[in-house]
Amino acid sequence: MLYAMMRTSILRQGGTSMRSTMKENFTRLRQAGPSKWHRLHSTSASANTSSKDTTKQPVIFSGIQPTGVPHLGNYLGALRQWVKLQDEAEPGTKLLFSIVDLHALTVPQDAKQLRKWRKEAFATLLAVGLDPKRSTIFYQSSVPAHTELMWILSTVASMGYLSRMTQWKSKLQLPDDANLDDSEARAQLRLGLFSYPVLQAADILIHRATHVPVGEDQRQHLEFSRYTANSFNHLYGEIFPTPEALISPAKRVMSLKEPTSKMSKSHPDPKSRIILTDSATEIQKKVKVALTDSEPKITYNPTQRPGVSNLIEILSHFEGASCVDIAAEFENSSLRALKEYVGERISFHLAEIRDRYISIMDDRSGYLDSVARDGGEAARANADVTMRKVRKVMGL
Amino acid sequence: MLYAMMRTSILRQGGTSMRSTMKENFTRLRQAGPSKWHRLHSTSASANTSSKDTTKQPVIFSGIQPTGVPHLGNYLGALRQWVKLQDEAEPGTKLLFSIVDLHALTVPQDAKQLRKWRKEAFATLLAVGLDPKRSTIFYQSSVPAHTELMWILSTVASMGYLSRMTQWKSKLQLPDDANLDDSEARAQLRLGLFSYPVLQAADILIHRATHVPVGEDQRQHLEFSRYTANSFNHLYGEIFPTPEALISPAKRVMSLKEPTSKMSKSHPDPKSRIILTDSATEIQKKVKVALTDSEPKITYNPTQRPGVSNLIEILSHFEGASCVDIAAEFENSSLRALKEYVGERISFHLAEIRDRYISIMDDRSGYLDSVARDGGEAARANADVTMRKVRKVMGL
Repeated sequence: MLYAMMRTSILRQGGTSMRSTMKENFTRLRQAGPSKWHRLHSTSASANTSSKDTTKQPVIFSGIQPTGVPHLGNYLGALRQWVKLQDEAEPGTKLLFSIVDLHALTVPQDAKQLRKWRKEAFATLLAVGLDPKRSTIFYQSSVPAHTELMWILSTVASMGYLSRMTQWKSKLQLPDDANLDDSEARAQLRLGLFSYPVLQAADILIHRATHVPVGEDQRQHLEFSRYTANSFNHLYGEIFPTPEALISPAKRVMSLKEPTSKMSKSHPDPKSRIILTDSATEIQKKVKVALTDSEPKITYNPTQRPGVSNLIEILSHFEGASCVDIAAEFENSSLRALKEYVGERISFHLAEIRDRYISIMDDRSGYLDSVARDGGEAARANADVTMRKVRKVMGL
Repeated sequence: MLYAMMRTSILRQGGTSMRSTMKENFTRLRQAGPSKWHRLHSTSASANTSSKDTTKQPVIFSGIQPTGVPHLGNYLGALRQWVKLQDEAEPGTKLLFSIVDLHALTVPQDAKQLRKWRKEAFATLLAVGLDPKRSTIFYQSSVPAHTELMWILSTVASMGYLSRMTQWKSKLQLPDDANLDDSEARAQLRLGLFSYPVLQAADILIHRATHVPVGEDQRQHLEFSRYTANSFNHLYGEIFPTPEALISPAKRVMSLKEPTSKMSKSHPDPKSRIILTDSATEIQKKVKVALTDSEPKITYNPTQRPGVSNLIEILSHFEGASCVDIAAEFENSSLRALKEYVGERISFHLAEIRDRYISIMDDRSGYLDSVARDGGEAARANADVTMRKVRKVMGL
């Protein structure tokens, strides 16, 4: 019942004409290079097709950490792009999206909360419009080949390269130029946090991904995955395509309470972020008390007026208009009127997601579990193809 | 056919009266502490039984790297002890022995050779007397839970502790006090070689091993496994027994060509080692040209006469007599006579192993593959019990 509802609403959301436009866009993207999506590398057309062992079929992979229901920043920066990629993709394209629960363990977790967060994240992927008929959606921990390949890649991954990565430093609040010379850093650091980029490389390579939609902050990790793929291929033959980053054009959504920082799950004030399942009233309330300034007119100036500019940017994502045009339109409006309009537009766009999320979470027929089970099975089958090749070339 | 033969020969080797003596020995060992086996830790009787989640059933686990047919040193130092443990074990004891092929990847391998070596190592475990009806014998790479648990343990394993381990330093020919401060060490070092002790801890803990027969040189790694088990249990509840080392009383067998160094697979001169499948002629020849000295009498003095003393020690393993007694017995014999006798005794003891090895390798009925398949299945089932507990306490 729920399943039928889901399919109908997805079709309603992306009807035939919309779908064909999106499909044309994707075809154009693939032919002409960066347009809406920025590729990290302008590799030659043959870069992903030179390998004997890989097919020319594009494979899109991305993952999200289970930190509960995602916020507006996650949605505009990643999830909305995943749904677009799904809807724009040519028929032969394979799409895989994962709740990367094994990555979540690099920082201490409460078991009960993690269990809840995993489920919420999965439900959200379905609610935003990922279609299990089209995309493989799965929990990372249900596919053991991710860690199997991680071990294999560990045998080629350089400790020197890993020690220069910045993520472990930022999580431990160390400066970017910190390194393993620092015995205090070593004492605090767990292997999992340090070796995380290798698991991420395995996530991507186990599915032979050719394209990886990532945020700007993940460029470094994707670059590491490319290096790892190439190092492995160099030693054992061409097994892995070199994955290309698809950097979303969406700018970062900033905190409503501290508009010089990214909207974040970890900010102590829940009013600093809009959660995809917030009700219209909650959204209106949060936008109303968003930190802005007291200048009389509405102008777009992210440096000097970060609060107002953030609201304009959010609006631009939903309206498809430029920030400058929106600012011009609202020039003589009051800040209150702008906020009301922003709140309305966000609510309008999130209403459908919220409704679907609630249906999925309220469902008692085991729908979510069955999608997760099917997704896990499909992901395992896809990963096994890679592991068979890897085992063979390594002599296992 | 081969299978029936195998069982018969194992029964012949360890008949009823011998079995009961061994069993008594093991019972005595378990009751009275170190006798023939030295325990690394004299933990109290309740050490392994305090945990709610673990049963009192002893679980013995050990592994061997696939480097082809093992040599006499591997046999006397480890494999013979494994067979003894199997034959002496009380009925409820679980035994698991693994060809740790994933560990082999920490150094560069030729795929074809590794494939051959894995098979040879597996056949040797059967040939020396491990009985697949009694012990679970399996390739590590056939049980993905080893790497799954490795990732989980990585999230608790300290980089500081790992950087103090000596194995990665010796493999890179760095001094024991080298550390990660050395940027040249970092550049050479691959993550796999550095994180190897965590995979080893996972090998042991995934099977909830209570006892691990290891060589003296592996004490440090077993100590790391104990620390890792305790760290995990401290954070998530009592899941893993703290494994105890069973240090074999067998002294090291030295190289026949360089008797101040251990007998080793990596020594350039094949005459420096006796391989378990060497023929009587090959064994006689190797012992005959073993490096000794030109003193007239036979005496036992490992420091001043390492070559002769090594031959006496080898003999003492087979004869069950002390080195001093053997030396006294041979005091007035010629070196040539001693060498002949040593060669004969080795040949006699290895003949049965060699015959069984050849039968197994020559078999075309798929016997080896079927034992490996069954072993893999049993090991996966045993590992899955642990992973279900681990997933539950971590919220996965």
